[in-house]
Amino acid sequence: MISFHITAINGDIRADIQDKIDNLTKPKGSLGMLEELALQIGLIQQSLSPSLQNPHHIVFAADHGIVEEGVSPSPKEVTYQMVANFLQGGAGINFLARQHQFDLSIVDTGVDHEFSEEEKKRIVNMKIRGGTRNYLHQAAMTQEEGERCLQNGAICTQSCYDKGCNVIGFGEMGITNTSSSALWVSYLMGKDLKECVGAGCDDTGSIIAHKYQVLKRATENYKGDGSPEDIMYYFGGYELVTAVGAMLKAAELGMIILVDGIIMTACAMMASKLKPHFLPYCIFGHEGAELVHGEALRYLGAKPLLQMGFRLGEGTGALCAYPIVESAVRMINEMNSFKTITVEKYFS
Amino acid sequence: MISFHITAINGDIRADIQDKIDNLTKPKGSLGMLEELALQIGLIQQSLSPSLQNPHHIVFAADHGIVEEGVSPSPKEVTYQMVANFLQGGAGINFLARQHQFDLSIVDTGVDHEFSEEEKKRIVNMKIRGGTRNYLHQAAMTQEEGERCLQNGAICTQSCYDKGCNVIGFGEMGITNTSSSALWVSYLMGKDLKECVGAGCDDTGSIIAHKYQVLKRATENYKGDGSPEDIMYYFGGYELVTAVGAMLKAAELGMIILVDGIIMTACAMMASKLKPHFLPYCIFGHEGAELVHGEALRYLGAKPLLQMGFRLGEGTGALCAYPIVESAVRMINEMNSFKTITVEKYFS
Repeated sequence: MISFHITAINGDIRADIQDKIDNLTKPKGSLGMLEELALQIGLIQQSLSPSLQNPHHIVFAADHGIVEEGVSPSPKEVTYQMVANFLQGGAGINFLARQHQFDLSIVDTGVDHEFSEEEKKRIVNMKIRGGTRNYLHQAAMTQEEGERCLQNGAICTQSCYDKGCNVIGFGEMGITNTSSSALWVSYLMGKDLKECVGAGCDDTGSIIAHKYQVLKRATENYKGDGSPEDIMYYFGGYELVTAVGAMLKAAELGMIILVDGIIMTACAMMASKLKPHFLPYCIFGHEGAELVHGEALRYLGAKPLLQMGFRLGEGTGALCAYPIVESAVRMINEMNSFKTITVEKYFS
Repeated sequence: MISFHITAINGDIRADIQDKIDNLTKPKGSLGMLEELALQIGLIQQSLSPSLQNPHHIVFAADHGIVEEGVSPSPKEVTYQMVANFLQGGAGINFLARQHQFDLSIVDTGVDHEFSEEEKKRIVNMKIRGGTRNYLHQAAMTQEEGERCLQNGAICTQSCYDKGCNVIGFGEMGITNTSSSALWVSYLMGKDLKECVGAGCDDTGSIIAHKYQVLKRATENYKGDGSPEDIMYYFGGYELVTAVGAMLKAAELGMIILVDGIIMTACAMMASKLKPHFLPYCIFGHEGAELVHGEALRYLGAKPLLQMGFRLGEGTGALCAYPIVESAVRMINEMNSFKTITVEKYFS
């Protein structure tokens, strides 16, 4: 596997950051989660005056062989149709990227479609194959393919970093990719698969029973060693493994990572299993509608910023929460201090 | 009392708005609360293409006679010191107003302080008196004063509206104004006062027992008729009653009202008791740390956008949530429709 060098965050500056926050002209602690965020960002950047530069969001797209088993009520064609929609600027992630001034990249990691020449110019082509293999019967990808995905993700993040980006969001598009995330989370948390299989973004839940039966059989057929890396490649989507690589590289580079819903949370969980110092670089934007997402977040010790019932993916929950991250940075940089102006420390 | 003419929102357009939202290129309902917000805003504006214009935030400030009874651990001087801080741009509400491009007005409704000539130029002067009377022994304000507050609030809102504003936030500054809001909420909800008295923005809670005893005696001494109007004037702060007038005027003008924490929620509750068609114009930004705030929100049928543990006031919770309101408007205006592009309706 390619190596990522993620350093534990140095806590020596913590007391100074906390002292600055505690002396801003407000009752101590009265800006709640903004204060926690400001501390986290200050620690990541090792600074009392953190900043957010050139935010970038990447959507990784791919198809999944397991779709043959009818685990999604939607046809896999939606994956490429939605990629086209991203390029047109008409999807959920687009208006959020425009609103919050994120650069947006769409990466084809394995979509089963030949895009037009015009579309190809605007897609980052990292296509491994036209969709993973069906993991009911065999590994979704080879180890070599998986390692290429990790490497590709790292390349994506490095490219953003080289343009001055220090805060990066990730999202995904791939019909039935909640099947992969359910399996990952089940193995990584040691949690009964049944409790990890949700409705995806189906609003009826009618698919769950069948989806569970198929995934259960897939786990029965699985003969690997059960290590995170093996689980990642066997059940993974190309887009998920690429996201893991992108996240690990972002932590290596000391960037702030904006995590979205259950799928990107599963990727963050995978990254944290591979590299234990990974998690403090993550800000979790949104707790989604799938029950297992809340449990996964608690397992990671994460406090999501929003709980708005999203079940769309693409990174929408991460970007929707971004202004709160900006607020935390403005708070610590822009508020007056009790040390410099005449306001008595106060409560109500 | 001055009259406000608030019309019930016409629901004829509801089905058309919902149809537009349901055909945006995402699984139906998958943007959760953004979809509910877009429907609400479309209804308020009677439009399938709503817009947010010239957002404005007003902080109403005043002192309270009850402070003599030691119900706050902070000296009342903090009220005017924080007003000075607002004018300097160094308080919590300032960075949020800058971030989200709100015009910000600071209104002195009854601060017990003579501001400097320089400060006066930048404060809207609607000072009734240097603080209310001590409602442990007598009404905080006369009916005539209360009516002037309502009128003043209406004038503030009208002034914003005349400058093209259609979305308006309100906040407050006044040491011990959580005493007034606790009393209002207790009477209006018919809820035991003990459950309504919180710590304000004190982080220790050490003041609660004494605060409750004082407020309990105030209710025992109260001999009024128990009507919302009488409760409002007897226990009210000038800044709270002015906010009620400002909110009622905003609803009359069909504006979107951004409601902050427990104090502004108490004002919205009061406004809804005075005018039953008021509430649908309100967006509740934040559920604060005081337990009674959550109960007050549920009583009003409100779903707050954020839950971030704020206990600061000023309108910080309302403004911090504003980008989400913008996201809802962008969603309905900017996303592609299944009716116009080639994406099959889909789930996961």
